Amino acid sequence: MTKSELIQQIKEKNSYLCVGLDSAIEKIPAHLNGDVVAFNKAIIEATAPYCVSYKVNTAFYESRGLQGWKDLEATLDLIPKTHLSIADAKRGDIGNTSDQYAKAFFETLAFDALTVAPYMGKDSLASFLEYKNKWTIVLGLTSNKGAEDFEMLDTPSGKVYEEVIKKVSSWAGEEQLMFVTGATQARQLGDIRKMIPNHFLLIPGVGAQGGSLEEISKQCMTEDIGMLVNSSRSIIFASSQEDFAQRAADAAQALQKEMTVMMQQTMK
Amino acid sequence: MTKSELIQQIKEKNSYLCVGLDSAIEKIPAHLNGDVVAFNKAIIEATAPYCVSYKVNTAFYESRGLQGWKDLEATLDLIPKTHLSIADAKRGDIGNTSDQYAKAFFETLAFDALTVAPYMGKDSLASFLEYKNKWTIVLGLTSNKGAEDFEMLDTPSGKVYEEVIKKVSSWAGEEQLMFVTGATQARQLGDIRKMIPNHFLLIPGVGAQGGSLEEISKQCMTEDIGMLVNSSRSIIFASSQEDFAQRAADAAQALQKEMTVMMQQTMK
Repeated sequence: MTKSELIQQIKEKNSYLCVGLDSAIEKIPAHLNGDVVAFNKAIIEATAPYCVSYKVNTAFYESRGLQGWKDLEATLDLIPKTHLSIADAKRGDIGNTSDQYAKAFFETLAFDALTVAPYMGKDSLASFLEYKNKWTIVLGLTSNKGAEDFEMLDTPSGKVYEEVIKKVSSWAGEEQLMFVTGATQARQLGDIRKMIPNHFLLIPGVGAQGGSLEEISKQCMTEDIGMLVNSSRSIIFASSQEDFAQRAADAAQALQKEMTVMMQQTMK
Repeated sequence: MTKSELIQQIKEKNSYLCVGLDSAIEKIPAHLNGDVVAFNKAIIEATAPYCVSYKVNTAFYESRGLQGWKDLEATLDLIPKTHLSIADAKRGDIGNTSDQYAKAFFETLAFDALTVAPYMGKDSLASFLEYKNKWTIVLGLTSNKGAEDFEMLDTPSGKVYEEVIKKVSSWAGEEQLMFVTGATQARQLGDIRKMIPNHFLLIPGVGAQGGSLEEISKQCMTEDIGMLVNSSRSIIFASSQEDFAQRAADAAQALQKEMTVMMQQTMK
């Protein structure tokens, strides 16, 4: 999916919501008897009108071994082509290994986008960036408390995460590169937006992690919207009963309505 | 495997060699018809006398989807209990996700050790460190050129990688924590050893990547040896013919002999 196609989806739906399929088997409703794919299918069907992207957190599938990997494949097949499919896998390694990770998530599993970790530098990201028609989403400033430990260390030319964003954005363009920037870091988001005025941001941390949709939207929204806000647990686990899909739709729709207001305020 | 058991294995075999099973399907000998497990089985049987550990680079398995994951499971089953089994997966995420990665590699796949990426800080590593009887191997200073981009940035109290090693080594002890430090970074290895005199180091980059076994051994070896040197391509792909296992054994034995000399020089 190209940047302009993504923007078109966002504007048609008045939504920049990404639904995170962190589908922990022990949290899905008991009546599904552990059928994660049936759970994801119901969630996707219920929430598709209100979101433009699905993010599959690979950890929740890998933890179940072979069956988990099967469910990961089946889940990708369920994501409509109209929605940006993101593998949230945070991979990254030396070149010949990153080549294999890129192949895993851009070819074998044909996701539209993959999250990657920047620690190992340019050659660890190059393998992903070679796929010009895919999105590489690099960790910038994450939503967790541990972001303070290394990401926020001072360097002579800014914090570590600022150096990451500055350098990485010089290695690839806004048509194939996004950054993960946590919703809990509202104070920094405005500065990040100034550094990269045109790149899409993938923003987790709204909902269970406590970030404010209104605040981050004010800090980050551009004329092209320029952001995807991810919510996982507060949507997919809105109910643990038989009404889980309807309640997920309600939670997604509530966010979509807030987003519509944010977009109207920015666009007017 | 405990630290003292690992040291015992090293001293019995006069070897601190880890063989990396970066078993790219397109590189295994043609007569095996793409049977990666048969390749790994032959490599393990041939090299086991000369090494103390096997490192499975998960990327080379993930890139082949479901079949790759099956081969990863089968390969783990082939690693003798006498050898430290390492999943080289470089995972790391917020707490509830790292929990799942820890489960994936310490329970579902019962590896002895897992490599993890430190970028997201303390809470991203805590899930792994809770497994006191497993080894968490944190990226410190990597062997690739991209190490210069972020790992080597200056901060007020040292380079980023020094801050990583300093902080992370305060979060867990030497019985469960190792660091990845690249063999191509010989100039820094001596200083790293002074920072963490008792932690094991996992050192990739000898062989195909160009690091010198003698130099890194002089910089890093302790009375307890304190290091595992990984070699992948130069052992497992020593030959692409029917003699591949024998040639892998020869390459592993040649390194083991060099290691014996290094150990004798340090121990005398």
